[in-house]
Amino acid sequence: MATEWPLGRRIAYGADYNPEHWTQDVRDEDLVLMREAGVTTVTIGMWDWALLEPREGEYDFGWLDRLLDDLHAAGIDVDLGTPSAAPPAWFYATYPEARVLTRDGVPLGPGSRGAAAPTSPQYREACVRIASRLAERYADHPAVVLWHVHNEYGAPVCEDFSPHALVAFRSWLADRYGDLDGLNAAWGTTFWGQVYGTWDEVGLPGPTASIGNPSQQLDFARFSEHALRECYILERDAIRARASQPVTTNFMANECPAIDMHAWAPEVDIVSNDHYLTAADVDGHIGLALAADLTRSASGGAPWILMEHSTSAVNWQPRNVAKRPGEMARNSLAHVARGADAVMFFQWRASRFGAEKFHSAMVPHAGTSSRVFREVVELGRDLARLGEMQGTTVRSDVALLWDQQSHWAQGLEWRPSVDMDAQERTRTWYEQLWRDHLTTDLVRPTDDLGRYRLVVAPASYLLTEQAAANLTAYVAGGGTLVVAGFAAAVDETDTVHAGGYLAPLRTVLGVHVEEYLPLREGATAEVEWAPAGEWPTTLTNRVWQEHVVLDGAEVVATFASGPGAGLPAVTRHEHGAGTAWYVPAFLDVDGLAPVLAAAYADAGIVPPALPEGVEAVTRVGDGVEYTVLLNHTDSDVEVPVADAGAVHELLADLPVDGTVHLAAGGRAVLRATVPTPDPRG
Amino acid sequence: MATEWPLGRRIAYGADYNPEHWTQDVRDEDLVLMREAGVTTVTIGMWDWALLEPREGEYDFGWLDRLLDDLHAAGIDVDLGTPSAAPPAWFYATYPEARVLTRDGVPLGPGSRGAAAPTSPQYREACVRIASRLAERYADHPAVVLWHVHNEYGAPVCEDFSPHALVAFRSWLADRYGDLDGLNAAWGTTFWGQVYGTWDEVGLPGPTASIGNPSQQLDFARFSEHALRECYILERDAIRARASQPVTTNFMANECPAIDMHAWAPEVDIVSNDHYLTAADVDGHIGLALAADLTRSASGGAPWILMEHSTSAVNWQPRNVAKRPGEMARNSLAHVARGADAVMFFQWRASRFGAEKFHSAMVPHAGTSSRVFREVVELGRDLARLGEMQGTTVRSDVALLWDQQSHWAQGLEWRPSVDMDAQERTRTWYEQLWRDHLTTDLVRPTDDLGRYRLVVAPASYLLTEQAAANLTAYVAGGGTLVVAGFAAAVDETDTVHAGGYLAPLRTVLGVHVEEYLPLREGATAEVEWAPAGEWPTTLTNRVWQEHVVLDGAEVVATFASGPGAGLPAVTRHEHGAGTAWYVPAFLDVDGLAPVLAAAYADAGIVPPALPEGVEAVTRVGDGVEYTVLLNHTDSDVEVPVADAGAVHELLADLPVDGTVHLAAGGRAVLRATVPTPDPRG
Amino acid sequence: MATEWPLGRRIAYGADYNPEHWTQDVRDEDLVLMREAGVTTVTIGMWDWALLEPREGEYDFGWLDRLLDDLHAAGIDVDLGTPSAAPPAWFYATYPEARVLTRDGVPLGPGSRGAAAPTSPQYREACVRIASRLAERYADHPAVVLWHVHNEYGAPVCEDFSPHALVAFRSWLADRYGDLDGLNAAWGTTFWGQVYGTWDEVGLPGPTASIGNPSQQLDFARFSEHALRECYILERDAIRARASQPVTTNFMANECPAIDMHAWAPEVDIVSNDHYLTAADVDGHIGLALAADLTRSASGGAPWILMEHSTSAVNWQPRNVAKRPGEMARNSLAHVARGADAVMFFQWRASRFGAEKFHSAMVPHAGTSSRVFREVVELGRDLARLGEMQGTTVRSDVALLWDQQSHWAQGLEWRPSVDMDAQERTRTWYEQLWRDHLTTDLVRPTDDLGRYRLVVAPASYLLTEQAAANLTAYVAGGGTLVVAGFAAAVDETDTVHAGGYLAPLRTVLGVHVEEYLPLREGATAEVEWAPAGEWPTTLTNRVWQEHVVLDGAEVVATFASGPGAGLPAVTRHEHGAGTAWYVPAFLDVDGLAPVLAAAYADAGIVPPALPEGVEAVTRVGDGVEYTVLLNHTDSDVEVPVADAGAVHELLADLPVDGTVHLAAGGRAVLRATVPTPDPRG
Repeated sequence: MATEWPLGRRIAYGADYNPEHWTQDVRDEDLVLMREAGVTTVTIGMWDWALLEPREGEYDFGWLDRLLDDLHAAGIDVDLGTPSAAPPAWFYATYPEARVLTRDGVPLGPGSRGAAAPTSPQYREACVRIASRLAERYADHPAVVLWHVHNEYGAPVCEDFSPHALVAFRSWLADRYGDLDGLNAAWGTTFWGQVYGTWDEVGLPGPTASIGNPSQQLDFARFSEHALRECYILERDAIRARASQPVTTNFMANECPAIDMHAWAPEVDIVSNDHYLTAADVDGHIGLALAADLTRSASGGAPWILMEHSTSAVNWQPRNVAKRPGEMARNSLAHVARGADAVMFFQWRASRFGAEKFHSAMVPHAGTSSRVFREVVELGRDLARLGEMQGTTVRSDVALLWDQQSHWAQGLEWRPSVDMDAQERTRTWYEQLWRDHLTTDLVRPTDDLGRYRLVVAPASYLLTEQAAANLTAYVAGGGTLVVAGFAAAVDETDTVHAGGYLAPLRTVLGVHVEEYLPLREGATAEVEWAPAGEWPTTLTNRVWQEHVVLDGAEVVATFASGPGAGLPAVTRHEHGAGTAWYVPAFLDVDGLAPVLAAAYADAGIVPPALPEGVEAVTRVGDGVEYTVLLNHTDSDVEVPVADAGAVHELLADLPVDGTVHLAAGGRAVLRATVPTPDPRG
Repeated sequence: MATEWPLGRRIAYGADYNPEHWTQDVRDEDLVLMREAGVTTVTIGMWDWALLEPREGEYDFGWLDRLLDDLHAAGIDVDLGTPSAAPPAWFYATYPEARVLTRDGVPLGPGSRGAAAPTSPQYREACVRIASRLAERYADHPAVVLWHVHNEYGAPVCEDFSPHALVAFRSWLADRYGDLDGLNAAWGTTFWGQVYGTWDEVGLPGPTASIGNPSQQLDFARFSEHALRECYILERDAIRARASQPVTTNFMANECPAIDMHAWAPEVDIVSNDHYLTAADVDGHIGLALAADLTRSASGGAPWILMEHSTSAVNWQPRNVAKRPGEMARNSLAHVARGADAVMFFQWRASRFGAEKFHSAMVPHAGTSSRVFREVVELGRDLARLGEMQGTTVRSDVALLWDQQSHWAQGLEWRPSVDMDAQERTRTWYEQLWRDHLTTDLVRPTDDLGRYRLVVAPASYLLTEQAAANLTAYVAGGGTLVVAGFAAAVDETDTVHAGGYLAPLRTVLGVHVEEYLPLREGATAEVEWAPAGEWPTTLTNRVWQEHVVLDGAEVVATFASGPGAGLPAVTRHEHGAGTAWYVPAFLDVDGLAPVLAAAYADAGIVPPALPEGVEAVTRVGDGVEYTVLLNHTDSDVEVPVADAGAVHELLADLPVDGTVHLAAGGRAVLRATVPTPDPRG
Repeated sequence: MATEWPLGRRIAYGADYNPEHWTQDVRDEDLVLMREAGVTTVTIGMWDWALLEPREGEYDFGWLDRLLDDLHAAGIDVDLGTPSAAPPAWFYATYPEARVLTRDGVPLGPGSRGAAAPTSPQYREACVRIASRLAERYADHPAVVLWHVHNEYGAPVCEDFSPHALVAFRSWLADRYGDLDGLNAAWGTTFWGQVYGTWDEVGLPGPTASIGNPSQQLDFARFSEHALRECYILERDAIRARASQPVTTNFMANECPAIDMHAWAPEVDIVSNDHYLTAADVDGHIGLALAADLTRSASGGAPWILMEHSTSAVNWQPRNVAKRPGEMARNSLAHVARGADAVMFFQWRASRFGAEKFHSAMVPHAGTSSRVFREVVELGRDLARLGEMQGTTVRSDVALLWDQQSHWAQGLEWRPSVDMDAQERTRTWYEQLWRDHLTTDLVRPTDDLGRYRLVVAPASYLLTEQAAANLTAYVAGGGTLVVAGFAAAVDETDTVHAGGYLAPLRTVLGVHVEEYLPLREGATAEVEWAPAGEWPTTLTNRVWQEHVVLDGAEVVATFASGPGAGLPAVTRHEHGAGTAWYVPAFLDVDGLAPVLAAAYADAGIVPPALPEGVEAVTRVGDGVEYTVLLNHTDSDVEVPVADAGAVHELLADLPVDGTVHLAAGGRAVLRATVPTPDPRG
C-alpha cells in the first residue's frame, strides 16, 4: 500500500458512472453537469461484462474507448472496474455448474447481481480473461488512473456449497491442518462422534439435524473469505502483469461481515470503502465514524477512497430515510476528517430502471433543479477548498480491538445468550468514545499497541494465547486496557481455553470467571458503580453478568441485582506499569461513560471539552493541522479555539478569532499552521 | 357478459354441495333440508375428478347422472364444476413433470388441493378432456344451469417455476417484446450487467444472490396470471363447443392478488366471487363492501353471484372467529345490496374430515337444532322476499382506482418504504368513503371516468402515460380527482418516469416531487390542515412524506413536523373545468375525513346524513329503487325516510312511515316505487 | 419393566462421561473427583461408534475394555450406550441414500448429531451389528449394569422423507388399513379430490400447495415414531440375545413431542428420562415436576432414572440462564420425590470443544474450585443419605390425561385457533394442581382410572369412542371428571365425531357444543363464576369460548362478555355415582383455582395446607413414608408437621419437632416410620 496517490493533489470527488443506462444526449449533458459539480473522478465498467464480451471470447471495446476519450477530454479521471461481480447471462447459461449453491443446495441464478461460485475454475478463468483484456487495452490510457477489481466482495453472497467449493474446502483444510489427525483435533470431532477417517468424508457445513460443528463452521467462514481473496488476487495479478496503475477493490468495512478488511488491505494498492447509513439508526453518523475509522485503520493510516456513499436515501433498507439538508456534506466531511482523500457516490445519475431505481444520486430523478443537486455542487466547491489536506494523516491515542474472526466465531449458534452480539457491543463502546470526542483506531489484538494510551476490547470472544500475551505485554509496558465481558472464551478453533473462560487474560486482569450468568429476555438489573473517592451511582445492566472471582484485582462496581447480585461488575488491576479493567456487565452507552472516564484517568487521556453532538477530528500534515468540526445537533454552538491568531477556516475562507460559530447542522474546517490550539482542550 | 341470468328471477340461494362425503341416508336428508332452507342452487363436481375418471381415460358418470336427476327432481338448480383444481392422485403419479415447482425448485405434490403446473401440456390436455366429457354429457341436463370451471384460480398457488413454465415464459416474452432488444430495454438489463444475448439465457425469476430484476418479476406475475387464464379459456371453449349454459369461474376479488379480476371478467359469462371475512378485522364488513364493489365493478355493473361465503367461522385463519347472531344475514344482504343476485355458501353440510372440517356450513356439525341452521332458514325466507330486486343495478358517483398490475409492481422488493402497502392504502381510503355512506366503484385508471363526480387514486404507484392522460382529461372535463402519494412513480415496465416521480400527473396536479421522505418505523409526524376559511386542524401522519414542489397548485395542508416539515402535505389545483388534489402524506382513516370532505365539496357530493355504522346502498330498477339498510352497531337507530308514503319494507312486508327503526345489528330493505326519498339525504 | 433395579440400593448419582474428549491425565483425575463427588454410575459410549468401528467392519474395543476396567476398579457402575445416535462419517459417505431428507427434500448430512433415516436397511443393519458386538463383548463385564440404546430418540429429528421412508410408510399403512378403501375412508380422501386408486399413488406428506391431508399427517407422525421404535427394538433384541443386563433408552418426556412415552415404556426394562429446565420459564420447577410425574406415570409407578439434567445452564436455548445456588439440589430432589432413584447429569466434565461447550457439567470449565463443583459434592452427600428411599413409590389421587396422539392431532394446521395449544393447556392445569400441592399422575384416557379421585382432561382434542366410554364409566362409578374445552372434537382419524364436537362425552357431561367461539388475538373476556352458595367472582377469559347447550348439566359459571356472552362457561353434571365438569373457557392458572377447588370438593380431596411455593411430595415404602419438602421461594418458611415424635429429617439427620424450618430455597426430607402425619394436612 505504499503506492503513490493516484487521484491528484486534491480531495477527489465523483461517483459510479453508468453511461450504459443512457442515450447519447444524456451522456453529453453528464459531462457538462460533472464540470458544474466539480467532479474529478468516476468509476465505470463494473457492470459491463456483457457489453464488453457479448459472447464468450468475442469482445467489443469500441464504446469504452470512446467513453474514456470523452471523459479524459473533459478532464475527468477514471477508476476502471473489472466486471467480475456480474458475469453475463451467457456465462450462467454456458456454465451452470459454476453457480453458487445455497446451504440447502438451491442454485443462485442470473437476473440479479453477485458472482458465480468463487472456486469455480470456469469463473476464475473468465474473470482473469476479461481483466487481462481490459488491462492490456487501457494500461496506457491517460484517463485510467486506478483499477477497481470486482465490486463489494462478499456481498450479496459469500458462502457457496457447490461441488467446486467442496473440493476446494478439503484442499484448504489439508493445507491448514496437514493431516486428518490435525483436523479431528481442531474440530473436536470426538464430540458427538464426528471423527473423520478419510478426507473424502469431510464435507461442507451443510444442513444437519442439530447444529453443525462450530469449528467446521468457523473454518468455512475463513475458507469462504479466502476463496474470494484468491479471486481478487488472480484479477489483480493479471492487471499488474499488464498495467501500472494502482489496483483497489471496494470494501464495505463492518457492513460486510464476510470480509476481514484487515486481512485484505495488504493486497490492495489503495484501500477504498463503501459506506451507507443505517436508516433506522438515528445516530447513523456514529456508525459512519466507526466505519471510516475501521477503513483508515485497515489502510494503516494511509489515505483511502470513500468509493461509494449516498447523496440521500438508499433503496435496500426497509425504510429508506432521505438525508436532511446538509447531512450529505457532514457525512462527506466526516469521512475526509477520518482519512478519506476521495469522496465518491453511488451514483452519478439515478437509474430509471433496475433494482436500485429508488437509490439517490448526484443527479436525482428530479434533475438539477433540486435540493440534492444544489448540495452536490456546493459540496464539490467545499472539497475543492480542502485540496491541501490530501495526504495528511489522522492520529489517535485510543484503539478499539476489532477481530473479524472473533466476530464470526461469536456469531455461531448455541452461545450463552443470543443477546450478546459482537457488532452491537463494538458499536456501543465506540459510541461512548465518540461522545467523548476521542478519535479511535480499530486494530487487531495481535497488532502493535504500543502507540496507544488506551486499548478497549469490546468483543474479544475468540482470543488466542498469542493475542492475550500481546495485550498483557501492552499493559505491562504501561498501557491501559479495558476488556468487556464474554472475552477470551475460546481459541482459534473455537475451543474453550484450558483453565476456563478468560484464562489467557487472568494474569493481566487479575480475575477469573467461574460461570456466565445471562439474563432472561428483557430483564434488567443494576450495577452499583462505586470507585474509590466517588459517590456511588447505579447503572442499568441488561443481557449479561458473570461470576467473576478476584485474583488480585480490585472491585470498582458490583452487581446490585440479577443472578450475579453481590459479585464484581467492574474490576481494575494494576499490572506492570499499566492498568487493566474487566467489565463483565452489559452496559448501555450511558453506563459505559463512567467506566471509560475512569479508564481515561488511568491512561492520562483528557477528552476535549466540546459541545455535545459536535464531531471534531484532526488531520496532521507537515507543520500544519486541519480540524474538521461538524455540528450534528439542531442548535447553533460556539466552539472555542485557543490561540486563534494562526487559525483559518477553509470553507468560508475566513480567519478564526477566538471561537468558531457552528450553525445547527453546520460544518467548518480549521487550518492551523502552528501546532493547532487543540479544540479538544 | 351479456348472458341471460341463469338462476331465475329471484335471489338465488345455496352452497357448494359435496354429496360424495356422505352416505345415501344423509343425502336423502339433504334434499329435505334444502327445501326447508329455501335452497335454489348448488354447486357440485369441483373435487370429483378421481370419481369421474378413476383411471386415466376410464370414466364413471353414473353416480353424477343420478345425483343431477335427484337434484332436478327436488327443484334445485345445479352449477356444475369442472374438477381441474384437483387432479387425481393418478395424474400426479403418471405425470410427475407436471407438478408445480416452487421458486426454490421444490415440487408440490398431491394430498392437498391446487392445480398442476398450468403450462404443463399434460395438465392442459387432461383438463380439456374431462371438461369436454362433462359438457358433452350434461349439455342438455335440465338441472345444469351454469358451468363452473375450476375453483379459485390463483389460490393456493399461482407461480410455477417448472421447466414447462420456463418454456412458456420465454414464448410469452417473445410475444410481448418481439425481440431481445425489446426485452433488454423493458427490463433495463444494463443495470447490474444482465444483458441477454440469446433467448436461451432468459430465465424465470428464480433464486438469486441479491434481489431479482423487478421488471422481470413484474412480467412473471403477468405471465403467471396469463397462464392460468389460458387454462380457463381452454376449458371454457371446450364447454362452449358442446353446451350452451353460461360459464363462470369463482374469483376471490382482492383476496387473491395473483388474479386481475378486471382482466378476467370479460372471459366469463357471469361474474362470480368468493368472499370471506378477515377475522382479525373488527370492521370486516367494510372489507366485505370493498370486495363486493370490486366484484360489481369488474362485472361492469351486471348482476353477479356470491359463489362462496360462510355461515359462520372459516378454518384457515389463525383465529377463526364465528359470526355473531344476525351477522350472516347482514353480510348476505350487503352483497345483495352491492349487486349480488345469488347468495351461496361454502358449504351445504360441514365435512367431518379433511382440511376444512372446522369450516362452518349451512348444516353445521351440531345439526339442524342450532342457531346457524335456524338463521340459514331465516335468510332463505328473507331472500325469497327480495326476488323482485333481481336484475336491478347499483349506481355510484364515486370511483376508486384499482389496478392490480400496479399492486404487483408496488409489492416488489426494495421500494422506498415497506410500510407503503397498496391494499392497505386502498382499504383506508375506501373505508372513509364507506363511513361517509358513499357507494364506490373500483375502476381501472384507463377506464372511462366521465360518469363519476369524484375519482380517488389511493395507490397508483404504476401509472402509464396513457392512464395519466385519461385522468388529466377527466379533470379537464370537470371531474374531481384525489391522488394519494407515491403515485405515478413508474411506467408499465417498472421504469421511473422521465422527469421523475409523478411526472405524468404534473400538469393536472400542479406539483412535482423532488424526493420521497419515508419515516422511520413507528414514527409519527403532524400535518397542519388549513384550507381557506377553516380553522386549522392537526392530523396525524405516519410512514410517508414527500418533498413536493408547487407548479401552480395551492397548499391546503402542510407538514408540521417530520422530514418534510414546512413542505406541502395536501395540495389543490384547478385544471380545466375540474379540480385535482394531491395528498403526499400517509393519513389514517380519521385523517382522510377532512381531505375527502373538501374534495366532496369540489365534486358537488353531499354525503347522506345517516347514523354512524349504518350501511345504506341503493339498487335501481325500472321505476323502482331498493335501499338496503344494515345496522352494524350494537345500538338501535332510527333512519329517517322522506316522503314515506310510497315506501315499503320488504323483509317485514310493512309500509314505512317517516322513519325506519333498525334494531342493533338489524336490517331492512326499502322499496320505493317513485324515485326513492333518498335516505342519504 | 418388572426388572430388578440395577443401580444398587441407593439413589444412584452420576453423569454422561466422555473420556474420549480428554487425555489420560485428565481421566486419571476424573476417577479421583468422581469419588469425591460420590458418583456411583456413569453413562459412556453413546458417541463412540467411530472409535469402536473406525472403518466399516473393523473394530477397536481395547480402549473400552481398559476404560470399563478402570471404572470398575474405581467402584463405578456403567450404563453402556450403543452409538446409533451418531453414525460415523464413513457411514454417511458409504451410504448417502441412508440420509434423512427434510420435507423439502434436503438431505441432512454428518457434522452434527442425529441418526440416519430410521427406515434405511443399511442403517438398521449397522446399528444391530455394533450393538451386537458390544453386547457380546460386555455381557459379563462386571462394570456394565445397564444398556443404554441410542440417545433421545426423536431428537433432533424424527420425520424423514427419504425414499426408504416412502416404502415403509406404504407398508405401515397397508398393515393399518388393510386395503385402499380403508385408507381412503380413514383419510377422508373425497375431500379435495384426493382418492387413491393404487398404493403407488400414496405418498409421504410432502410439500403441497395448500395444507396437506390432516389424517395423512397424523398417520405420518404415528409411522415416524413407529419407525424409531422398530430401530430401538432391533437393538434391544440384539442385546437381549447376548446379554442379561437390563436395557433402557433415555426419553425426553414432554420435551420431545415426537415420542409417545407411554407407548414406548413397555419396551424398556427401566424407564429413564432427560430433563432440562426452560430458561425463559421463571417457574421452571413446575415444568420439571410435570415431566417427572409423566415419566413416573409412563413407568407405571416403578422407579426410574433421571438420566440427564444439568448442574447449571444449558447451551441450546436462546438465553441459557445459570442455576442459582441451591437450585440444582432442589431440582434433583424434586425428581427423587417424584420417583427417580437415580440422579444423573449431562455431563461429568464440560467439553472444551463441540456444539455443547457452553453446557454446564459436574466439573465445569472453571474446575473444582467453583460453586458448581462444591454443590455437586454436597448433592452427592445428600443423596447418599437418602439411599433408603430407593424402591419406594409415589401415590397420587389425581390424574391428568396425557395423550400424545391427541397432541399431535391438535397441533396440525387449520384448527379453530392457533392459541389453543395442548402442551400449554396441560401445563396450566397441572400448574394449579401443583400450587394446590397435589401430586398428579399423567395417564392415557383409556387407562384404568378407578384408583383416582379426580381426573382432569386439559387437552383431549382427539378422544376415541372407547376412551370416552372409559371416562363415562369412571364417572358413573363415582369418579370426578373435569374436561376442558376443545375436547372430543375428533376420533383417531381426525374425523369430527358424528353428532358434532364433544358428542362422545355428551352423556357424561350433560352438555353438547353447537359451535366454537375463538377470541381475537389478545382479546379478553370475563367469566362470571357463581356456584351455588358462593359469592360470584369474575375470572379472566382469553383465547376461547364455546357455544354450549345444556343436556342436563347445571351452569356454574357464565361468559359475561365476549362472543359467548350469556352462555355457560363452566358446567357440572352428576352422572351415576360421580360428577363431571365441562370448562369450555380458556382460563389462566389463577382462573382455574376456583374451578379445581370446586372439583376437589366433589372428589373429596382436601389439598394440604402448605405455604405457597413449597413443594411437598411423599414416597411410600413398607411401613415408612418419605416426604420431600422444597422451598422454591426467597423467604424462609415454617412447615407444620403433626405428631412429630416419629419424624426424622434425613439431610441434616435430625429429629423433627412440630415444624420444619425451610430456609429460602431450602430442602428437607422427612421420614415417618408410622403413617406419616401428612404435611399436606
